[in-house]
Amino acid sequence: MWVLCLGFSSMALAQEPVDLDMAGRIRQEAFHHSQVMDILGHLTEDIGPRLTNSPQMAQANAWTQEKFKGWGLANVHDEAFDDFGRGWEFSEANVEMLAPRTAPLYALPKAWTPGTNGPVEGEVMRVSIKTRKDLDQYKGKLKGRILLLDDARAYKPGTEADWQRYDDAGLAELQGFTLPKGPSRDRAALLKRYAERQELARATNEFFVAEGVLATIAISGWDNGIIRVGGGGSRRAGESVGVPELAMMAEHYNPLVRALERKETVKLRVDVKARFTDDSNRPGYNTIAEIPGSGGKANEIVMLGAHMDSWHTGTGASDNGAGVAVMMEAMRILKAVGAKPKRTIRVGLWSGEEQGLIGSRAYVAKHFASYPEPTDPAQKALPAFLREPTGTLQKQPGYERFAAYFNMDNGSGRFRGIYAQENTAAMPIFKAWLEPFHDVGATTVTSRDTGSTDHVSFDAVGLPGFQFIQDKLDYSTNVHHSNLDTLDHASADDLKQAAAIVAFFAWQAAQREEKLPRKPLAQD
Amino acid sequence: MWVLCLGFSSMALAQEPVDLDMAGRIRQEAFHHSQVMDILGHLTEDIGPRLTNSPQMAQANAWTQEKFKGWGLANVHDEAFDDFGRGWEFSEANVEMLAPRTAPLYALPKAWTPGTNGPVEGEVMRVSIKTRKDLDQYKGKLKGRILLLDDARAYKPGTEADWQRYDDAGLAELQGFTLPKGPSRDRAALLKRYAERQELARATNEFFVAEGVLATIAISGWDNGIIRVGGGGSRRAGESVGVPELAMMAEHYNPLVRALERKETVKLRVDVKARFTDDSNRPGYNTIAEIPGSGGKANEIVMLGAHMDSWHTGTGASDNGAGVAVMMEAMRILKAVGAKPKRTIRVGLWSGEEQGLIGSRAYVAKHFASYPEPTDPAQKALPAFLREPTGTLQKQPGYERFAAYFNMDNGSGRFRGIYAQENTAAMPIFKAWLEPFHDVGATTVTSRDTGSTDHVSFDAVGLPGFQFIQDKLDYSTNVHHSNLDTLDHASADDLKQAAAIVAFFAWQAAQREEKLPRKPLAQD
Repeated sequence: MWVLCLGFSSMALAQEPVDLDMAGRIRQEAFHHSQVMDILGHLTEDIGPRLTNSPQMAQANAWTQEKFKGWGLANVHDEAFDDFGRGWEFSEANVEMLAPRTAPLYALPKAWTPGTNGPVEGEVMRVSIKTRKDLDQYKGKLKGRILLLDDARAYKPGTEADWQRYDDAGLAELQGFTLPKGPSRDRAALLKRYAERQELARATNEFFVAEGVLATIAISGWDNGIIRVGGGGSRRAGESVGVPELAMMAEHYNPLVRALERKETVKLRVDVKARFTDDSNRPGYNTIAEIPGSGGKANEIVMLGAHMDSWHTGTGASDNGAGVAVMMEAMRILKAVGAKPKRTIRVGLWSGEEQGLIGSRAYVAKHFASYPEPTDPAQKALPAFLREPTGTLQKQPGYERFAAYFNMDNGSGRFRGIYAQENTAAMPIFKAWLEPFHDVGATTVTSRDTGSTDHVSFDAVGLPGFQFIQDKLDYSTNVHHSNLDTLDHASADDLKQAAAIVAFFAWQAAQREEKLPRKPLAQD
Repeated sequence: MWVLCLGFSSMALAQEPVDLDMAGRIRQEAFHHSQVMDILGHLTEDIGPRLTNSPQMAQANAWTQEKFKGWGLANVHDEAFDDFGRGWEFSEANVEMLAPRTAPLYALPKAWTPGTNGPVEGEVMRVSIKTRKDLDQYKGKLKGRILLLDDARAYKPGTEADWQRYDDAGLAELQGFTLPKGPSRDRAALLKRYAERQELARATNEFFVAEGVLATIAISGWDNGIIRVGGGGSRRAGESVGVPELAMMAEHYNPLVRALERKETVKLRVDVKARFTDDSNRPGYNTIAEIPGSGGKANEIVMLGAHMDSWHTGTGASDNGAGVAVMMEAMRILKAVGAKPKRTIRVGLWSGEEQGLIGSRAYVAKHFASYPEPTDPAQKALPAFLREPTGTLQKQPGYERFAAYFNMDNGSGRFRGIYAQENTAAMPIFKAWLEPFHDVGATTVTSRDTGSTDHVSFDAVGLPGFQFIQDKLDYSTNVHHSNLDTLDHASADDLKQAAAIVAFFAWQAAQREEKLPRKPLAQD
């Protein structure tokens, strides 16, 4: 049943049809027969963390395919994106202080770094390496040493609650748009620094191996015993993987630095079991499935997506098992309520997001559009997600048939609305679509952009790609890229609400007379 | 220079002399030449955690004696309290999940439990033991198993900031006194439960050893990866120490329970290096030192104190290195400013506090007063700190010569005032003494009692024993009895302020014409 929603804010809103019957059916399935926590539980606790190209990521690809098939989705398959690199996994990481006193220390390895091949013991030494020239002073001095890479860091007291939800003032504040600053030399400097850092990392890996360093230890990105860490070494076959690298909880790291400053001899034992699971570079895999449309719009595409890969020290529950579970649950709900959409509704569970939106970007390039490879060597040296668009957008046949993409990747918090990504014409449409969910807290459409995840792959080529406003919960205080990113920190009720809204947005986008309006490309 | 402080609230306040000259000298030394963080740093990071009767506690006794002697204190010595039990220490604790998937898990041992004597591997099993009868069902079923003792626990979101300071409203609220409830059957029931729990623990230790249990794992008391744990096993020679017992971070524990609920086989490897450092029970030791008084009041005693023992998983920085460092620094300051007190100012660095105020209570019994040993077997079975006072208080000669005791044991937070412990007559005196420290935040005298630490040993026999109101910081959210109780969570400025106030209170109490007024004994 299509009804006219009598909105208050604009003619466009007044004319946007909202399928309240379908909203009710979706809510019923999502709120009363939810499977979202079962899905998230399996992903995180049966499968575990899902580093791109790890065996566990492959398990996740296989299991999600199986679920999709079980729900009767069509065209279920994995789709490769080339040349990601090698897989890696770890199973143990034990560090003991042997001098000046004995104590266990808590540290976990950076992804894509080698294990120690059994316990190793060595004296600890502080090194400060900011440029390639800094390596020279350490030549011949590092053999058998365990290196501390960072300064001690003062404890930062938590003066806000860990667990945050938007209040009315916060949502109102989100309505304001800040004009972007023009292209600046800042970006050029940033890219230069990025390239230099990459080059320094490569040189340092080789140097540490050549010098016989046993292991390196960095300070965790956060305090309170949380270990927040990403990758190190190299995932590329043929590059030096360096030496074992760990990140240590701040409360254990700082005392090591202070002991060295007091000229004490600090000795550690380190035992990391980690391994590269491939000898050569491999493609990564996105998992794709769809509910085919029917009728004249069947070859137009509405997409949902979230990245299935995660970092390795937690179980990737909030980043981004939550998004995957919600997108899967949204597809399940649509099937369960018997949705027969006009447009095809397709879900993409991306890989390689944490390494720069690699999976979604490759998918968009293959099916929709991309910019030519850069010819400028400086641009070429950058990973794709950092490159400036150059040349003319190369459109695939699917480009014009693409209707909309909806992404989720800001933890497990409740949807409070949506970022319109400066797509002004889409705003009244979203306002209308949110009305059936005002009572569960989703009310706000902001013109603002949000970034740093897979909808950017769509947005970057001028396709309407969106992400939702979410309550923050403890995403930025406890779980993001940390060992606490586990099932217990995910919010079940919020995920049920999110799945309902995603299913309904997909339905509305699939049924709408016109595809969603597009904004001009930023570089047009 | 003694001056009359013209207060506003009572005649008593108006007449209390306040030595502003000495306040100024103490502030100068405490704020501009502080050594409090050096002391705390050595205690926590050179010596480490200081479990009662551990080798590190003995190091702390020796080092603090040396410091006191270096500062020119008199009568520096350790004083034994009998029959505490054995020492214990640990150096490693590694747990790996082997099935259903591999991952390192973070867990630390309970104090006074045995190590594993090398890595052990076994299947995990959930047991629920609430009474002795519950043991029967497990007979013959536990061999080679690793036992989970607790249910999974839902994550409790942090809706307040971790780091808290009193605001004006909070300090005002502290001024209200809640009438105590009369003696109730609650207390009797509580003591009965305590005795039953102790008996169950003993029976369970023996049962698990007899049944061949490999290890037990409890859930940490707090979330967010923090490991909060005290003792297990037994510190008493001749009692069963049970099997290796660990507490695991909640985010790693809960998934094990859930996997068992899904009927999955869960296998762990556990490797704990821990040892009892004595074969037989030993006395514990308090460290004592003093600045002798002179003149007619020289044999009257003002005491300062804090417990030097700590739990074992952090380094006992806030609980209670902070108190120890402040009391030591207060003594140092008094010597540095050339204080020649009328009464003797004595410091006691207690041991055995965490096991029930054992060191301070023994000290008070020996030097000041105690109640006779109970004859009721039920009372006799309780540890001393839980017994009801019975019979007539046995006073030592020092009892009447005792002026006051000041304690610190609520973390490293700034002093905001003092708890008067219902000693109404002391309140205007403390109000006057606090005036020179209003500008650094110490303003409040409350009639309220505060408990759970060593001033209770004095208060319980009718001696004026006090503790200060402190800003909470993250004492109750992150560090109390946890692996995060480390130097980085201690607040340097707050400890400087506290040391100044303690030194000044000691001075005022030592110089005052009369000893501090006493309140009637609760049981009189």
